[in-house]
Amino acid sequence: MAELTLVIGNKNYSSWSLRAWLYLKINDISFDEVRLPLDTVQFQQEIYTYSPSGKVPALSHGKVRVWDSFAIIAYIYRTFPDSANWPKDPVVQGLAISAVMEMHSGFMALRQHYPMNCRKTPFKAPLRGNVERDLNRLESLWTMLLDASGGPWLGGELGIVDAYFAPVAMRIHTYQLPVSEPLQRYVQQVLQLPAMQEWIASAKQETEVVNADEWQD
Amino acid sequence: MAELTLVIGNKNYSSWSLRAWLYLKINDISFDEVRLPLDTVQFQQEIYTYSPSGKVPALSHGKVRVWDSFAIIAYIYRTFPDSANWPKDPVVQGLAISAVMEMHSGFMALRQHYPMNCRKTPFKAPLRGNVERDLNRLESLWTMLLDASGGPWLGGELGIVDAYFAPVAMRIHTYQLPVSEPLQRYVQQVLQLPAMQEWIASAKQETEVVNADEWQD
Repeated sequence: MAELTLVIGNKNYSSWSLRAWLYLKINDISFDEVRLPLDTVQFQQEIYTYSPSGKVPALSHGKVRVWDSFAIIAYIYRTFPDSANWPKDPVVQGLAISAVMEMHSGFMALRQHYPMNCRKTPFKAPLRGNVERDLNRLESLWTMLLDASGGPWLGGELGIVDAYFAPVAMRIHTYQLPVSEPLQRYVQQVLQLPAMQEWIASAKQETEVVNADEWQD
Repeated sequence: MAELTLVIGNKNYSSWSLRAWLYLKINDISFDEVRLPLDTVQFQQEIYTYSPSGKVPALSHGKVRVWDSFAIIAYIYRTFPDSANWPKDPVVQGLAISAVMEMHSGFMALRQHYPMNCRKTPFKAPLRGNVERDLNRLESLWTMLLDASGGPWLGGELGIVDAYFAPVAMRIHTYQLPVSEPLQRYVQQVLQLPAMQEWIASAKQETEVVNADEWQD
């Protein structure tokens, strides 16, 4: 079997990288990790070797090239049949795929105003932009998933949906965003995953600062 | 087998609706079509019955609810095993999934400045915003897919990727956007599909006008 290489950005900031990385980790799939710090000359010089879109994350597997966080996850569960797939129950499956796609193209206020910043000391951030709308939507979406699947993970068992929303859990924690008790419990459950702890520990050792991804008072 | 219902917006304007609708059509899957005209009181009153996100397209299949164009396609190919799936060759499959996801979250200038407008008489539109960057990326992406798959469709056989880029083909045609000869041929091939002809014919019979989706001189 060809070697898997996952190219990621800074662990502190790159929320899309975290999704693909975490999915590989929770499935115990081994891979070489290449970290290209965002906003650097090195990134610009090396990213196109791996990623035709010029963005992270990117996966190479022999001659195969996959870029985009969801594309990587989909390629992995198609190629490694033992890895976590969509929930089997059709109702939960419909919700799970829809939720992941809604995250893929949406939650813009949350993404824009509350950048993932793993090493930042948690604090109660003010609500900006349309983030209340995003938080209401998240409340409804996660509640719907937990109710339909029975929990404890969004799709029942730990899998695709959890990897996909992990950076949102990180943001809720860092910026102490207001969500209900059950959602708070889910956030802590995600953060306690050994793979998440590993990611956060590495993020804390990084020294690069990307100003655009730092909280602006 | 439970009835499938696909909820779409205006055929003239709703590019995301077209993707899901076309995918069902090219797979000869029968479904009930519910059209909710965008930007109307009727839309606001009825959409949440079908779509928790409040957006089209949305699919219902018995108790299953799926929203988001790609989520619908994924649910369909998982549920109806005879429908077009990803290309089997791993290299083409990696490219195909990545390309669809890049479309799902990107090509913002093309989407913002050149709204799909099926009934509009084609004309040579000026280039606006960062659309040249989007067109360069599209040139490279489609060429890579056609080369890797051998054509005549983006993934080899007619399927997911073509349904996903059909609204882009429509835009290139309407606004006479500059693309290479091979891409022009592909655009015409998409527009000649019987299902596309059916969609366009219905769009021409619609009378609603959504100003935000009309070309502004």
